[in-house]
Amino acid sequence: MTDGRAVEDLVVGVLGGTGPQGRGLAVRLAAAGQRVLLGSRDAERAEEVAAEVATRAGAAAGGVEVSVRGGSNVDVAGAADLVVIAVPYAGHADTLAELATPLAGKVVVDCVVPMGWDELGAYVLDVPEGSVCQQAAVLLPDSSVVGAFHHLSAVTLEDLSQPTLDGDVMVVGDTREATDVVQALAGRLPGMRGVYAGRLRNARQVEALTINLVSVNRRYKAHAGVRITDV
Amino acid sequence: MTDGRAVEDLVVGVLGGTGPQGRGLAVRLAAAGQRVLLGSRDAERAEEVAAEVATRAGAAAGGVEVSVRGGSNVDVAGAADLVVIAVPYAGHADTLAELATPLAGKVVVDCVVPMGWDELGAYVLDVPEGSVCQQAAVLLPDSSVVGAFHHLSAVTLEDLSQPTLDGDVMVVGDTREATDVVQALAGRLPGMRGVYAGRLRNARQVEALTINLVSVNRRYKAHAGVRITDV
Repeated sequence: MTDGRAVEDLVVGVLGGTGPQGRGLAVRLAAAGQRVLLGSRDAERAEEVAAEVATRAGAAAGGVEVSVRGGSNVDVAGAADLVVIAVPYAGHADTLAELATPLAGKVVVDCVVPMGWDELGAYVLDVPEGSVCQQAAVLLPDSSVVGAFHHLSAVTLEDLSQPTLDGDVMVVGDTREATDVVQALAGRLPGMRGVYAGRLRNARQVEALTINLVSVNRRYKAHAGVRITDV
Repeated sequence: MTDGRAVEDLVVGVLGGTGPQGRGLAVRLAAAGQRVLLGSRDAERAEEVAAEVATRAGAAAGGVEVSVRGGSNVDVAGAADLVVIAVPYAGHADTLAELATPLAGKVVVDCVVPMGWDELGAYVLDVPEGSVCQQAAVLLPDSSVVGAFHHLSAVTLEDLSQPTLDGDVMVVGDTREATDVVQALAGRLPGMRGVYAGRLRNARQVEALTINLVSVNRRYKAHAGVRITDV
Protein backbone atom coordinates (compact mmCIF):
# COMPACT_ATOMS: atom_id res chain seq x y z
CA MET A 1 0.00 0.00 0.00
CA THR A 2 2.31 2.74 1.20
CA ASP A 3 5.24 0.28 1.44
CA GLY A 4 5.92 1.37 5.00
CA ARG A 5 6.98 4.85 3.93
CA ALA A 6 6.52 7.71 6.39
CA VAL A 7 3.37 9.70 5.71
CA GLU A 8 5.34 12.86 4.96
CA ASP A 9 6.96 11.12 1.98
CA LEU A 10 3.64 10.27 0.31
CA VAL A 11 2.31 12.25 -2.65
CA VAL A 12 -1.32 13.01 -1.83
CA GLY A 13 -3.83 13.38 -4.65
CA VAL A 14 -7.02 15.34 -4.05
CA LEU A 15 -9.77 14.55 -6.57
CA GLY A 16 -12.37 17.27 -6.82
CA GLY A 17 -9.56 19.54 -5.68
CA THR A 18 -11.07 22.62 -7.29
CA GLY A 19 -14.12 22.51 -4.97
CA PRO A 20 -14.05 24.22 -1.57
CA GLN A 21 -13.42 21.11 0.58
CA GLY A 22 -10.77 19.68 -1.74
CA ARG A 23 -9.04 23.01 -2.21
CA GLY A 24 -9.10 23.64 1.56
CA LEU A 25 -7.53 20.28 2.31
CA ALA A 26 -4.97 20.75 -0.46
CA VAL A 27 -3.81 24.15 0.79
CA ARG A 28 -3.49 22.95 4.41
CA LEU A 29 -1.65 19.77 3.45
CA ALA A 30 0.68 21.69 1.12
CA ALA A 31 1.37 24.30 3.80
CA ALA A 32 2.31 21.42 6.13
CA GLY A 33 4.91 20.25 3.58
CA GLN A 34 2.93 17.43 1.96
CA ARG A 35 3.42 17.05 -1.80
CA VAL A 36 -0.04 17.48 -3.33
CA LEU A 37 -1.55 16.68 -6.73
CA LEU A 38 -4.81 18.44 -7.32
CA GLY A 39 -7.26 16.71 -9.65
CA SER A 40 -10.36 17.86 -11.48
CA ARG A 41 -12.44 16.69 -14.45
CA ASP A 42 -10.97 19.75 -16.20
CA ALA A 43 -7.18 19.39 -16.14
CA GLU A 44 -6.59 22.99 -17.18
CA ARG A 45 -8.76 24.28 -14.35
CA ALA A 46 -6.89 21.95 -11.96
CA GLU A 47 -3.56 23.47 -13.03
CA GLU A 48 -4.86 27.00 -12.46
CA VAL A 49 -6.17 26.18 -8.98
CA ALA A 50 -2.98 24.26 -8.14
CA ALA A 51 -0.87 27.32 -8.95
CA GLU A 52 -3.08 29.50 -6.76
CA VAL A 53 -3.02 26.94 -3.91
CA ALA A 54 0.77 26.69 -4.16
CA THR A 55 1.10 30.47 -3.84
CA ARG A 56 -1.17 30.66 -0.79
CA ALA A 57 0.35 27.59 0.88
CA GLY A 58 3.84 28.92 0.21
CA ALA A 59 3.04 32.24 1.86
CA ALA A 60 1.72 30.40 4.93
CA ALA A 61 4.33 27.66 5.08
CA GLY A 62 7.10 29.66 6.65
CA GLY A 63 10.01 28.19 4.74
CA VAL A 64 8.63 24.67 4.22
CA GLU A 65 8.96 23.65 0.57
CA VAL A 66 5.57 23.60 -1.12
CA SER A 67 4.69 21.33 -4.04
CA VAL A 68 1.24 21.48 -5.64
CA ARG A 69 0.55 20.43 -9.22
CA GLY A 70 -2.70 19.99 -11.10
CA GLY A 71 -4.07 17.43 -13.54
CA SER A 72 -7.08 15.40 -14.58
CA ASN A 73 -8.69 13.19 -11.93
CA VAL A 74 -7.50 10.08 -13.74
CA ASP A 75 -3.89 11.27 -14.07
CA VAL A 76 -3.78 12.32 -10.42
CA ALA A 77 -5.33 8.99 -9.35
CA GLY A 78 -2.54 7.18 -11.18
CA ALA A 79 0.35 9.36 -10.02
CA ALA A 80 -0.46 9.86 -6.33
CA ASP A 81 0.49 7.46 -3.52
CA LEU A 82 -2.70 8.15 -1.53
CA VAL A 83 -5.84 9.77 -2.89
CA VAL A 84 -8.50 11.89 -1.20
CA ILE A 85 -11.95 11.92 -2.84
CA ALA A 86 -13.58 15.35 -2.44
CA VAL A 87 -15.98 15.46 -5.38
CA PRO A 88 -19.64 16.43 -4.93
CA TYR A 89 -21.84 13.48 -3.96
CA ALA A 90 -23.76 13.86 -7.23
CA GLY A 91 -20.59 12.92 -9.16
CA HIS A 92 -19.17 10.40 -6.67
CA ALA A 93 -20.20 7.09 -8.24
CA ASP A 94 -19.50 8.17 -11.83
CA THR A 95 -16.06 9.54 -10.93
CA LEU A 96 -14.95 6.44 -9.04
CA ALA A 97 -16.35 3.99 -11.60
CA GLU A 98 -13.60 5.06 -13.99
CA LEU A 99 -10.77 4.96 -11.46
CA ALA A 100 -10.70 1.39 -10.12
CA THR A 101 -7.54 0.56 -12.09
CA PRO A 102 -5.39 3.65 -11.29
CA LEU A 103 -6.48 3.48 -7.62
CA ALA A 104 -5.82 -0.26 -7.21
CA GLY A 105 -3.52 -1.02 -4.29
CA LYS A 106 -3.80 2.49 -2.86
CA VAL A 107 -5.32 4.02 0.23
CA VAL A 108 -8.36 6.05 -0.85
CA VAL A 109 -9.74 8.57 1.65
CA ASP A 110 -13.36 9.52 1.09
CA CYS A 111 -14.65 12.75 2.67
CA VAL A 112 -17.83 13.11 0.62
CA VAL A 113 -21.07 13.96 2.47
CA PRO A 114 -24.45 12.79 1.09
CA MET A 115 -26.26 16.07 1.75
CA GLY A 116 -29.49 17.36 0.25
CA TRP A 117 -31.27 20.68 0.81
CA ASP A 118 -34.92 21.61 0.95
CA GLU A 119 -37.03 24.34 2.57
CA LEU A 120 -36.30 22.90 6.07
CA GLY A 121 -32.54 22.95 5.59
CA ALA A 122 -30.01 20.15 5.06
CA TYR A 123 -30.81 16.45 5.23
CA VAL A 124 -29.13 13.12 4.54
CA LEU A 125 -29.45 11.61 1.08
CA ASP A 126 -30.02 7.87 0.98
CA VAL A 127 -26.99 6.00 -0.38
CA PRO A 128 -27.88 2.56 -1.75
CA GLU A 129 -24.67 0.99 -0.42
CA GLY A 130 -25.35 2.35 3.11
CA SER A 131 -22.79 5.16 3.03
CA VAL A 132 -20.63 7.03 0.55
CA CYS A 133 -17.56 5.19 1.88
CA GLN A 134 -19.21 1.83 1.33
CA GLN A 135 -20.14 2.93 -2.19
CA ALA A 136 -16.46 3.73 -2.79
CA ALA A 137 -15.44 0.33 -1.43
CA VAL A 138 -17.81 -1.40 -3.87
CA LEU A 139 -16.53 0.64 -6.84
CA LEU A 140 -12.85 0.31 -5.85
CA PRO A 141 -12.53 -3.35 -4.85
CA ASP A 142 -8.73 -3.32 -4.98
CA SER A 143 -8.23 -0.15 -2.92
CA SER A 144 -8.28 0.35 0.85
CA VAL A 145 -11.11 2.82 1.41
CA VAL A 146 -11.02 4.95 4.54
CA GLY A 147 -13.52 7.63 5.60
CA ALA A 148 -12.09 10.84 7.08
CA PHE A 149 -12.00 14.67 6.90
CA HIS A 150 -15.81 15.06 6.83
CA HIS A 151 -16.11 17.51 9.72
CA LEU A 152 -13.58 20.15 8.68
CA SER A 153 -15.17 23.39 7.61
CA ALA A 154 -14.00 24.39 4.13
CA VAL A 155 -14.15 28.03 5.24
CA THR A 156 -11.78 27.36 8.12
CA LEU A 157 -9.47 25.20 6.02
CA GLU A 158 -9.13 27.95 3.44
CA ASP A 159 -8.56 30.70 6.01
CA LEU A 160 -4.79 30.48 6.41
CA SER A 161 -4.83 33.55 8.67
CA GLN A 162 -5.79 30.98 11.35
CA PRO A 163 -2.66 28.82 11.45
CA THR A 164 -4.11 26.27 13.91
CA LEU A 165 -7.32 24.28 13.36
CA ASP A 166 -9.56 23.06 16.19
CA GLY A 167 -11.05 19.61 15.81
CA ASP A 168 -10.46 15.90 15.42
CA VAL A 169 -10.67 13.85 12.26
CA MET A 170 -12.80 10.74 12.79
CA VAL A 171 -11.21 7.95 10.73
CA VAL A 172 -13.23 4.85 9.78
CA GLY A 173 -12.02 1.85 7.84
CA ASP A 174 -11.51 -1.89 7.83
CA THR A 175 -7.71 -2.10 7.33
CA ARG A 176 -5.49 -1.12 10.23
CA GLU A 177 -2.53 -0.11 8.02
CA ALA A 178 -4.81 2.19 6.01
CA THR A 179 -6.53 3.85 8.97
CA ASP A 180 -3.14 4.32 10.65
CA VAL A 181 -1.71 6.19 7.65
CA VAL A 182 -4.82 8.39 7.38
CA GLN A 183 -4.65 9.18 11.10
CA ALA A 184 -1.04 10.20 10.60
CA LEU A 185 -2.00 12.35 7.61
CA ALA A 186 -4.70 14.08 9.68
CA GLY A 187 -2.09 14.76 12.33
CA ARG A 188 -0.07 16.74 9.77
CA LEU A 189 -2.75 19.46 9.90
CA PRO A 190 -1.88 21.88 12.72
CA GLY A 191 -4.14 21.37 15.74
CA MET A 192 -5.85 18.28 14.36
CA ARG A 193 -5.69 14.64 15.41
CA GLY A 194 -6.81 11.56 13.54
CA VAL A 195 -8.94 9.41 15.84
CA TYR A 196 -9.90 5.86 14.87
CA ALA A 197 -13.69 5.66 15.01
CA GLY A 198 -14.72 2.23 13.78
CA ARG A 199 -15.31 0.11 10.72
CA LEU A 200 -16.54 1.18 7.31
CA ARG A 201 -20.03 -0.14 8.06
CA ASN A 202 -20.24 2.62 10.66
CA ALA A 203 -19.22 5.36 8.20
CA ARG A 204 -22.76 6.56 7.48
CA GLN A 205 -23.25 8.48 10.70
CA VAL A 206 -19.78 10.02 10.51
CA GLU A 207 -20.58 11.34 7.02
CA ALA A 208 -24.08 12.44 8.01
CA LEU A 209 -23.03 14.21 11.21
CA THR A 210 -21.67 16.94 8.93
CA ILE A 211 -25.30 17.81 8.27
CA ASN A 212 -25.87 18.42 11.98
CA LEU A 213 -22.79 20.65 11.99
CA VAL A 214 -24.46 22.69 9.25
CA SER A 215 -27.37 23.23 11.67
CA VAL A 216 -24.92 24.16 14.42
CA ASN A 217 -23.26 26.67 12.10
CA ARG A 218 -26.60 28.26 11.26
CA ARG A 219 -27.78 28.54 14.85
CA TYR A 220 -24.49 29.75 16.36
CA LYS A 221 -22.95 31.59 13.38
CA ALA A 222 -19.99 29.23 13.71
CA HIS A 223 -17.75 26.95 11.68
CA ALA A 224 -18.22 23.97 13.94
CA GLY A 225 -16.05 20.88 14.17
CA VAL A 226 -15.88 17.90 16.51
CA ARG A 227 -13.49 16.91 19.29
CA ILE A 228 -13.48 13.46 20.85
CA THR A 229 -13.07 13.69 24.63
CA ASP A 230 -11.12 11.33 26.92
CA VAL A 231 -8.78 10.32 24.05
CA MET B 1 -45.38 22.47 27.77
CA THR B 2 -43.25 23.64 30.68
CA ASP B 3 -45.42 26.76 31.16
CA GLY B 4 -42.36 28.97 31.09
CA ARG B 5 -41.01 27.54 34.36
CA ALA B 6 -37.27 27.56 34.94
CA VAL B 7 -35.67 24.22 34.17
CA GLU B 8 -34.54 23.74 37.79
CA ASP B 9 -38.21 23.70 38.87
CA LEU B 10 -39.16 20.82 36.59
CA VAL B 11 -39.62 17.28 37.89
CA VAL B 12 -37.67 15.05 35.50
CA GLY B 13 -38.83 11.49 34.95
CA VAL B 14 -36.34 8.91 33.70
CA LEU B 15 -37.99 5.85 32.15
CA GLY B 16 -35.73 2.84 32.09
CA GLY B 17 -34.09 4.46 35.08
CA THR B 18 -32.81 1.18 36.48
CA GLY B 19 -30.53 0.61 33.45
CA PRO B 20 -26.98 2.04 33.39
CA GLN B 21 -27.71 5.08 31.15
CA GLY B 22 -30.93 6.03 32.94
CA ARG B 23 -29.43 5.51 36.38
CA GLY B 24 -26.35 7.52 35.43
CA LEU B 25 -28.43 10.45 34.19
CA ALA B 26 -30.68 10.25 37.27
CA VAL B 27 -27.80 10.38 39.74
CA ARG B 28 -26.12 13.32 37.96
CA LEU B 29 -29.36 15.29 37.63
CA ALA B 30 -30.28 14.61 41.27
CA ALA B 31 -26.82 15.64 42.45
CA ALA B 32 -27.31 18.91 40.52
CA GLY B 33 -30.49 19.54 42.52
CA GLN B 34 -33.05 18.40 39.94
CA ARG B 35 -36.09 16.54 41.36
CA VAL B 36 -36.06 13.12 39.70
CA LEU B 37 -38.65 10.36 39.32
CA LEU B 38 -37.10 7.08 38.32
CA GLY B 39 -39.31 4.72 36.31
CA SER B 40 -39.13 1.03 35.50
CA ARG B 41 -41.50 -1.67 34.33
CA ASP B 42 -41.06 -3.04 37.86
CA ALA B 43 -42.16 -0.33 40.31
CA GLU B 44 -40.62 -2.07 43.32
CA ARG B 45 -37.25 -2.31 41.60
CA ALA B 46 -37.55 1.38 40.64
CA GLU B 47 -38.08 2.31 44.29
CA GLU B 48 -35.02 0.33 45.37
CA VAL B 49 -32.80 1.94 42.73
CA ALA B 50 -34.24 5.38 43.48
CA ALA B 51 -33.26 5.03 47.14
CA GLU B 52 -29.75 3.99 46.19
CA VAL B 53 -29.45 6.85 43.65
CA ALA B 54 -30.70 9.33 46.26
CA THR B 55 -28.03 8.19 48.72
CA ARG B 56 -25.20 8.47 46.17
CA ALA B 57 -26.44 11.79 44.78
CA GLY B 58 -26.86 13.16 48.30
CA ALA B 59 -23.28 12.26 49.21
CA ALA B 60 -22.03 14.04 46.08
CA ALA B 61 -24.38 17.01 46.17
CA GLY B 62 -22.59 18.98 48.87
CA GLY B 63 -25.62 20.38 50.65
CA VAL B 64 -28.00 20.59 47.67
CA GLU B 65 -31.33 18.97 48.55
CA VAL B 66 -31.75 15.69 46.69
CA SER B 67 -35.13 14.25 45.68
CA VAL B 68 -35.34 10.89 43.89
CA ARG B 69 -38.39 8.66 43.99
CA GLY B 70 -39.23 5.50 42.05
CA GLY B 71 -42.36 4.15 40.38
CA SER B 72 -43.73 2.35 37.37
CA ASN B 73 -42.95 3.84 33.95
CA VAL B 74 -46.60 4.81 33.47
CA ASP B 75 -46.89 6.52 36.87
CA VAL B 76 -43.62 8.40 36.34
CA ALA B 77 -44.72 9.43 32.83
CA GLY B 78 -47.88 10.90 34.29
CA ALA B 79 -46.29 12.63 37.28
CA ALA B 80 -43.15 14.17 35.74
CA ASP B 81 -42.99 17.53 33.95
CA LEU B 82 -40.37 16.35 31.45
CA VAL B 83 -39.51 12.73 30.70
CA VAL B 84 -36.27 11.11 29.54
CA ILE B 85 -36.58 7.78 27.68
CA ALA B 86 -33.64 5.52 28.54
CA VAL B 87 -35.07 2.06 27.93
CA PRO B 88 -33.22 -0.51 25.79
CA TYR B 89 -34.00 -0.15 22.07
CA ALA B 90 -35.60 -3.62 22.10
CA GLY B 91 -38.32 -2.30 24.42
CA HIS B 92 -38.61 1.23 23.00
CA ALA B 93 -41.68 0.95 20.77
CA ASP B 94 -43.67 -1.24 23.19
CA THR B 95 -42.93 1.03 26.14
CA LEU B 96 -43.92 4.23 24.35
CA ALA B 97 -47.03 2.74 22.73
CA GLU B 98 -48.67 2.67 26.17
CA LEU B 99 -47.61 6.16 27.23
CA ALA B 100 -49.06 8.52 24.61
CA THR B 101 -51.76 9.76 27.00
CA PRO B 102 -49.65 10.39 30.15
CA LEU B 103 -46.90 12.00 28.00
CA ALA B 104 -49.26 14.26 26.01
CA GLY B 105 -48.27 17.92 26.16
CA LYS B 106 -44.84 17.16 27.61
CA VAL B 107 -41.27 17.40 26.42
CA VAL B 108 -39.95 13.86 25.90
CA VAL B 109 -36.18 13.44 25.63
CA ASP B 110 -35.08 10.29 23.86
CA CYS B 111 -31.50 9.04 24.39
CA VAL B 112 -31.95 5.51 23.07
CA VAL B 113 -29.31 4.12 20.68
CA PRO B 114 -30.27 1.50 18.06
CA MET B 115 -27.18 -0.65 18.57
CA GLY B 116 -26.62 -4.26 17.61
CA TRP B 117 -23.58 -6.49 18.22
CA ASP B 118 -21.98 -9.23 16.17
CA GLU B 119 -18.52 -10.77 15.80
CA LEU B 120 -17.19 -7.55 14.22
CA GLY B 121 -18.39 -5.35 17.06
CA ALA B 122 -21.22 -2.82 17.31
CA TYR B 123 -23.38 -1.71 14.40
CA VAL B 124 -26.49 0.38 13.76
CA LEU B 125 -29.88 -1.35 13.79
CA ASP B 126 -32.31 -0.26 11.13
CA VAL B 127 -35.24 1.71 12.58
CA PRO B 128 -38.30 1.70 10.29
CA GLU B 129 -39.16 5.33 11.14
CA GLY B 130 -35.60 6.48 10.27
CA SER B 131 -34.40 6.98 13.84
CA VAL B 132 -35.41 6.11 17.38
CA CYS B 133 -36.42 9.74 17.94
CA GLN B 134 -38.67 9.71 14.89
CA GLN B 135 -40.20 6.46 16.14
CA ALA B 136 -40.95 8.20 19.43
CA ALA B 137 -42.51 11.14 17.59
CA VAL B 138 -44.82 8.77 15.69
CA LEU B 139 -45.87 6.96 18.89
CA LEU B 140 -46.25 10.16 20.94
CA PRO B 141 -48.07 12.50 18.54
CA ASP B 142 -49.04 14.97 21.30
CA SER B 143 -45.59 15.25 22.88
CA SER B 144 -42.57 17.34 21.85
CA VAL B 145 -39.86 14.76 21.19
CA VAL B 146 -36.24 15.88 21.48
CA GLY B 147 -33.12 13.75 20.99
CA ALA B 148 -30.27 14.27 23.49
CA PHE B 149 -27.87 12.63 25.99
CA HIS B 150 -26.75 9.88 23.57
CA HIS B 151 -23.01 10.44 23.85
CA LEU B 152 -22.59 10.39 27.63
CA SER B 153 -20.79 7.32 28.88
CA ALA B 154 -22.87 5.53 31.53
CA VAL B 155 -19.63 4.62 33.30
CA THR B 156 -18.59 8.26 33.55
CA LEU B 157 -22.07 9.39 34.57
CA GLU B 158 -22.14 6.88 37.41
CA ASP B 159 -18.63 7.71 38.62
CA LEU B 160 -19.37 10.56 41.01
CA SER B 161 -15.72 10.65 42.08
CA GLN B 162 -15.32 12.74 38.90
CA PRO B 163 -17.43 15.79 39.73
CA THR B 164 -17.06 17.39 36.29
CA LEU B 165 -18.00 15.77 32.98
CA ASP B 166 -16.29 16.50 29.67
CA GLY B 167 -18.49 16.72 26.61
CA ASP B 168 -21.39 18.41 24.87
CA VAL B 169 -24.95 17.17 24.56
CA MET B 170 -26.14 17.36 20.94
CA VAL B 171 -29.83 18.31 21.05
CA VAL B 172 -32.09 17.67 18.04
CA GLY B 173 -35.76 18.52 17.72
CA ASP B 174 -38.37 20.42 15.77
CA THR B 175 -39.77 22.74 18.49
CA ARG B 176 -37.59 25.60 19.66
CA GLU B 177 -39.20 25.79 23.13
CA ALA B 178 -38.53 22.07 23.65
CA THR B 179 -34.92 22.06 22.43
CA ASP B 180 -34.23 25.16 24.53
CA VAL B 181 -35.43 23.49 27.74
CA VAL B 182 -33.42 20.34 27.00
CA GLN B 183 -30.32 22.42 26.31
CA ALA B 184 -30.84 24.10 29.67
CA LEU B 185 -31.29 20.70 31.35
CA ALA B 186 -28.04 19.46 29.80
CA GLY B 187 -26.33 22.55 31.14
CA ARG B 188 -27.30 21.50 34.68
CA LEU B 189 -24.75 18.66 34.42
CA PRO B 190 -21.36 19.98 35.56
CA GLY B 191 -19.02 20.53 32.60
CA MET B 192 -21.64 19.84 29.96
CA ARG B 193 -23.38 22.12 27.46
CA GLY B 194 -26.49 21.49 25.41
CA VAL B 195 -25.78 22.37 21.77
CA TYR B 196 -28.62 22.61 19.25
CA ALA B 197 -27.75 20.25 16.41
CA GLY B 198 -30.66 20.22 13.99
CA ARG B 199 -34.11 18.82 13.32
CA LEU B 200 -35.50 15.45 14.30
CA ARG B 201 -35.03 14.15 10.77
CA ASN B 202 -31.30 14.46 11.41
CA ALA B 203 -31.45 12.47 14.68
CA ARG B 204 -30.32 9.17 13.18
CA GLN B 205 -26.66 10.03 12.90
CA VAL B 206 -26.57 11.59 16.37
CA GLU B 207 -27.96 8.36 17.83
CA ALA B 208 -25.70 6.17 15.70
CA LEU B 209 -22.50 8.12 16.41
CA THR B 210 -22.63 6.49 19.85
CA ILE B 211 -21.65 3.28 18.06
CA ASN B 212 -18.49 4.95 16.75
CA LEU B 213 -17.72 6.09 20.29
CA VAL B 214 -17.90 2.41 21.33
CA SER B 215 -15.13 1.75 18.76
CA VAL B 216 -13.15 4.71 20.11
CA ASN B 217 -13.52 3.34 23.65
CA ARG B 218 -12.25 -0.06 22.56
CA ARG B 219 -9.24 1.25 20.65
CA TYR B 220 -8.16 3.87 23.20
CA LYS B 221 -9.39 2.29 26.46
CA ALA B 222 -11.44 5.45 26.98
CA HIS B 223 -14.94 6.64 27.86
CA ALA B 224 -15.20 8.97 24.90
CA GLY B 225 -17.61 11.84 24.43
CA VAL B 226 -17.99 14.64 21.90
CA ARG B 227 -17.27 18.36 22.02
CA ILE B 228 -18.48 20.75 19.33
CA THR B 229 -15.76 23.26 18.45
CA ASP B 230 -16.17 26.97 17.59
CA VAL B 231 -19.42 27.16 19.63
